[in-house]
Amino acid sequence: MMRGFDSIDSMNHEELLVRRKRGNKKVLIFLGIIIAAFFIIGILIGYFSRPGNGGSGGAAPSTDGNNFDYVKFVQENVNKDNIRENLRRYSSEPRLAGTPLDEKLAKTIEKEWRENGLEEVHLATYEVLLSFPNKSNPNVVQILNGSNAVQFESQKFEKPLTDHENNSNVVPPFNGHSPSGNVKGDVVYVNYGRIEDFEYVANNLSLNITGKIVIARYGKIFRGDKVKNAERFSAIAVILYSDPQDYNMDVNVTNTYPNSWWLPPTGIQRGTVGVDGDPQTPLYPSTSYAHRLSDMETDLLLPRIPSQPIGYGDAQEILSIMGGPDAPEDWQGGLNFTYRIGPGFLDQNNSTVRVIVNNNNEVRPVHNVIGYIKGKEEPDRYVLLGNHHDAWVFGAVDPLSGSAALTEITRVFGLMLSKGHRPRRTVVFCSWDAEEYGLVGSVEWVEDHLKVLHQRGVALLNLDYAAVSNYSLAVGTSPLLQDALYAAAKKVPSPDPSVGETLYDLWTARPIKKMKDPSPDPYVTYSLGSGSDMAAFYQRAGVPSVDMWMTYNEIEMPLSSYPLYHSSHETFFAYDTFIDPGFSATNTITQFMAILACDLACTELLPMDVQRYSAAVSNFHQTLINSFGDKWQKQNVNIEAFDSSVQNFTAATKAFQDILDADKETILKSPLDLRRINDQLMLLERAFLNPEGLPGRPSQKHVMFAPSQFDSYVDNSFPGIMDTMYEIDHGDEGKWEQLKQQVFIATHIIQSAASTLEDIGL
Amino acid sequence: MMRGFDSIDSMNHEELLVRRKRGNKKVLIFLGIIIAAFFIIGILIGYFSRPGNGGSGGAAPSTDGNNFDYVKFVQENVNKDNIRENLRRYSSEPRLAGTPLDEKLAKTIEKEWRENGLEEVHLATYEVLLSFPNKSNPNVVQILNGSNAVQFESQKFEKPLTDHENNSNVVPPFNGHSPSGNVKGDVVYVNYGRIEDFEYVANNLSLNITGKIVIARYGKIFRGDKVKNAERFSAIAVILYSDPQDYNMDVNVTNTYPNSWWLPPTGIQRGTVGVDGDPQTPLYPSTSYAHRLSDMETDLLLPRIPSQPIGYGDAQEILSIMGGPDAPEDWQGGLNFTYRIGPGFLDQNNSTVRVIVNNNNEVRPVHNVIGYIKGKEEPDRYVLLGNHHDAWVFGAVDPLSGSAALTEITRVFGLMLSKGHRPRRTVVFCSWDAEEYGLVGSVEWVEDHLKVLHQRGVALLNLDYAAVSNYSLAVGTSPLLQDALYAAAKKVPSPDPSVGETLYDLWTARPIKKMKDPSPDPYVTYSLGSGSDMAAFYQRAGVPSVDMWMTYNEIEMPLSSYPLYHSSHETFFAYDTFIDPGFSATNTITQFMAILACDLACTELLPMDVQRYSAAVSNFHQTLINSFGDKWQKQNVNIEAFDSSVQNFTAATKAFQDILDADKETILKSPLDLRRINDQLMLLERAFLNPEGLPGRPSQKHVMFAPSQFDSYVDNSFPGIMDTMYEIDHGDEGKWEQLKQQVFIATHIIQSAASTLEDIGL
Repeated sequence: MMRGFDSIDSMNHEELLVRRKRGNKKVLIFLGIIIAAFFIIGILIGYFSRPGNGGSGGAAPSTDGNNFDYVKFVQENVNKDNIRENLRRYSSEPRLAGTPLDEKLAKTIEKEWRENGLEEVHLATYEVLLSFPNKSNPNVVQILNGSNAVQFESQKFEKPLTDHENNSNVVPPFNGHSPSGNVKGDVVYVNYGRIEDFEYVANNLSLNITGKIVIARYGKIFRGDKVKNAERFSAIAVILYSDPQDYNMDVNVTNTYPNSWWLPPTGIQRGTVGVDGDPQTPLYPSTSYAHRLSDMETDLLLPRIPSQPIGYGDAQEILSIMGGPDAPEDWQGGLNFTYRIGPGFLDQNNSTVRVIVNNNNEVRPVHNVIGYIKGKEEPDRYVLLGNHHDAWVFGAVDPLSGSAALTEITRVFGLMLSKGHRPRRTVVFCSWDAEEYGLVGSVEWVEDHLKVLHQRGVALLNLDYAAVSNYSLAVGTSPLLQDALYAAAKKVPSPDPSVGETLYDLWTARPIKKMKDPSPDPYVTYSLGSGSDMAAFYQRAGVPSVDMWMTYNEIEMPLSSYPLYHSSHETFFAYDTFIDPGFSATNTITQFMAILACDLACTELLPMDVQRYSAAVSNFHQTLINSFGDKWQKQNVNIEAFDSSVQNFTAATKAFQDILDADKETILKSPLDLRRINDQLMLLERAFLNPEGLPGRPSQKHVMFAPSQFDSYVDNSFPGIMDTMYEIDHGDEGKWEQLKQQVFIATHIIQSAASTLEDIGL
Repeated sequence: MMRGFDSIDSMNHEELLVRRKRGNKKVLIFLGIIIAAFFIIGILIGYFSRPGNGGSGGAAPSTDGNNFDYVKFVQENVNKDNIRENLRRYSSEPRLAGTPLDEKLAKTIEKEWRENGLEEVHLATYEVLLSFPNKSNPNVVQILNGSNAVQFESQKFEKPLTDHENNSNVVPPFNGHSPSGNVKGDVVYVNYGRIEDFEYVANNLSLNITGKIVIARYGKIFRGDKVKNAERFSAIAVILYSDPQDYNMDVNVTNTYPNSWWLPPTGIQRGTVGVDGDPQTPLYPSTSYAHRLSDMETDLLLPRIPSQPIGYGDAQEILSIMGGPDAPEDWQGGLNFTYRIGPGFLDQNNSTVRVIVNNNNEVRPVHNVIGYIKGKEEPDRYVLLGNHHDAWVFGAVDPLSGSAALTEITRVFGLMLSKGHRPRRTVVFCSWDAEEYGLVGSVEWVEDHLKVLHQRGVALLNLDYAAVSNYSLAVGTSPLLQDALYAAAKKVPSPDPSVGETLYDLWTARPIKKMKDPSPDPYVTYSLGSGSDMAAFYQRAGVPSVDMWMTYNEIEMPLSSYPLYHSSHETFFAYDTFIDPGFSATNTITQFMAILACDLACTELLPMDVQRYSAAVSNFHQTLINSFGDKWQKQNVNIEAFDSSVQNFTAATKAFQDILDADKETILKSPLDLRRINDQLMLLERAFLNPEGLPGRPSQKHVMFAPSQFDSYVDNSFPGIMDTMYEIDHGDEGKWEQLKQQVFIATHIIQSAASTLEDIGL
């Protein structure tokens, strides 16, 4: 389908040109003539080199330098039946990282990408530490009576609910990188397991968590942080479960999967509780020759207490008989009884809980698939598209819907290439392995190729799941790419024409977050620090990144994630029937990713907006001042310099944009001037990296946007400052010097970013 | 003077061209015609835009893209009388960092550079921690008798030996950043104060150094390391002195300055014993808004025991009466008695030594001078030329001979510009302050501009002293710039035509180090890690660097430095009379630096040689294997992977060069291809930076070349490996895991460097 898309935004970008006036007038006149001649002949070349397409005339919107309309090409060629078929094949078997069926999928993708016309398709293999449960001795949570007899036992395997799920390769429920253990104790309910939840129990209720087993519901924060918090409060094990309030909107349990997308009582969310990247090789790649930490050193980086996930059917057996005070109102979940804190049970006969975890850490090879189409004019500038191919089980949503889409994009780019349209810049396609174990495949690859990525990476577009529903678009992005996203979304037909003509219209009409201030722009978040494979690109290499997917109405359905997340019920059937019937949302995001990639890979001037970056910095800076300004003043924090640096950065982005705008009319025909401007745009993100990393977190190098160490605390901006203020606000007054240091570093980095936009900047 | 210089080497570079063959044949034919047309017209433009210079015809050697013969221009315009006059003015007063006379000089240089035509000349000021002795309570070393009466006192002021030196602004002898102290104890002679010297006394002689005052001669290693070693062995103070053997070749003392360049018995070497950069702000710039470490934290980074330098006249008073065993043969210095170890004195009447140091640390502003000539085609690529302007006293050698030369270079570049010759790339001129206190001005500036320098720095040429004598050339360089140095040296007339026509001939004919293997190339060292202002550029920003000066015959005169080094006798008189009478060596190095800068700033293809880099890596790798291979094999160090990475890097540099060579004939007319190749060349150095730094030394990021922490140990290559092996060889067997980690990091970084030379490298 071809529609009259609004592409004014992208035209503005393409027309932006810079030409410095200097030097000898005579030379300039000569040069003008030469350039004009060159330009006319260039047009002729472009005209004759355009294969087949006749004299359609006029400058088309969203074309590359050779007048090829890649938007139309993508729209006409992305085929949702192909994506559906890809997904059917990819999700036909469990794809757990490090297993033969996962390797088989990697090789399938490698083969298909090669057939689709990508160049140099290869496997990038790393030997990493994974973690597996023991099928013949499965993990279990038990209730024991006073004489240690088992009164109740959680499901050892997740119940198959369709024929397809009845597969011996389905991995039993477990938490990746949880240590083994067999512990017994009283149970305490800790809500979401956030720091503030533990503090409530320990401080407000004066309940000693030491030696207890905690039961926490999934949601709000990363499950690994729940375990870390439990360790901090000296618990001995963690039981994790999915509460219907967070995953089912209190839905009637008879109406769950396979009759709907809602999680059944037997459904269980798997997931890692470990760290990002291979814990044996922090900061360095797990190549064949890597030096690895000893087991003891590795263990120090991983959780020290066992954890195990269970379904809400089983959780109900424990929670419903717990004793102690009633949990507060907002701790009450969706199960039909009053949640109590514990410790222990109501029955007073010394019942306890036992958690048995029999996981094994094993070093296994994981296989990323890498292929590319080499750029024509700027082969040394890379636009990267990534998705992972390992799944906890069938992974039809997470991640194979994304894999299915990415393979379709390789087909469209291959087709483009076969018709003679090679992009200006190199487009790299990446299919990551072992994402589920902590972004392992992508982290190791980024560590392996840090230098090249740091020097040449233009952007990384991440698609984990293509769609978890079909309501609207969810986007995390670097501010640099925010406008490119808007421009691209205007070139993609809406999956629901009743809501608007383009994806941009849909995105605008269906916000997924209630905005404090009404904004003319569709909602994006700047959180890119973790959770999927853009993290290392953004945090380590400073490559401007985007993460995107189609989602449900998150305002009306405040779920912690789509309900079947990481269960064995993420099947092709579920995707095809409930998530995106007809694949129109999937088709939309595929077109969106492909067109955004073309915009980044084909336009002469990179579609990046530095003023968005300064606006973001300025907003988050204001939030800090509003929150902490008074306290800071009392402690003589150098607020004035911090303010100035933000103002200077704002002024520098404006001056930079003004120069671009002023020379808009002149056609930018100086390759070196263009390259210089593009380098300044692309490298602006690098300016926010501090080689020294955040305090205590050497692998997190982005000073502006990174996950907070205490991840429930406000937002993901200025992590060094936010984390330190968190500690101060929690009583550690000794951290004021560190706070001043972090404010200084932020001031310096922002100042330094401003200087990269100046002409010379020294 | 114009001579028929051999410039074949540089021509080879200029003719190297890369043009990838791809795409549509029709387009290629069209492009060929266009390029040819463009080329011819380009030649015409170049011809007509050449001001004044008539039709001299033919492609001249060493010209920029516009056929301007900058070599001839430099040769004709560098004027040694100007340099001499600059030096006279600059060295007319003491220029101690942080004092009014130093600031006055900074402003003079700023004014002169502006008058010479540099653009945007400005002071870059930082507030840093300096250290000063107390003139009304000067430092002194005393011999006390058993009843603590002073028997002997060292000179409190250095004796003026010419009228000019009789200046109240001459700072008394002291060690920068030595703490104050007043300590008494027995004295022990520790030779050069190297680790092995202390070990000899402590282990071979079983003499306990704890609580002793050590007396060490200057030379062999950095004086700060002597103090550090003394601390490690629990000495309570260090007396440093210049032994005639190391500074005077045992010369007859009546024949010293002001009658020769030899150090008089009253001459005293000042010098810092502190760290590089402002100790208050490690890793970050000392901007006005900087957060500074507390005094207590700063003190932890500085020496904890006092030290004080004395002349050999005074040292003789102490050394000649010392008791204990005779010092070994190679510990015997040039004074006319048998050196003994101590502790204490021969006289048996309980004489002791007292060291009184009254230094003050003070935060003061220091002023770098920065100015540039903006590049025409590639303004965002920087060739930097630097020298410092602060001196311990008059600094006519160190550093003002270099300052005098640098100002003359600004004049020549300004003249070039006024005649319409703007270099292709930006040329940045830097005059650093507070180098003598630990490279403070340059370190803070690099920390301030790290992002821009990392992204855009092509090369840094450092000239500390222009000449310490006029015998031959001394060079420290990145291997990348080695051939550029040779090529430039061939374009510079020899300062002594009897030795050869060019500086290259002189350099070849007069090696300053005995070579193990006869080499066809003049001697260079790859040590750039410390000692002058290239250090931060190389170690922190990864900018390929060069350090250069004219020197004496270091084979026949194995001095520890030129004799008057850091004394108040480094006067214009000394320079003009003894160091370089007639200024011919100074003239030579000035031309050399200017021509090298032109080569780097004006040629289209950067004159950098990647195969020199792989040869250097390969050699140093072989040295490691020869030294440690057997031990490593026993410990299962992954030698094989290390070997492979070096082979891969060697192969990658060859493949890269082969591509350059293969396309030599085609004139490189694709600005983007040229830029890509130049980026690969320039950024190769960055590939050797590890953002995590060396073990325990976060500011040293260069994995290949950095000063060893134990600086007497072998060489400056593979510092992480060398330092760890040092510790293992000194009994710390627990370091084998660290060694394996360091070998892994080296392997990974070399592999990673190889990938930056590949086409895509992913």
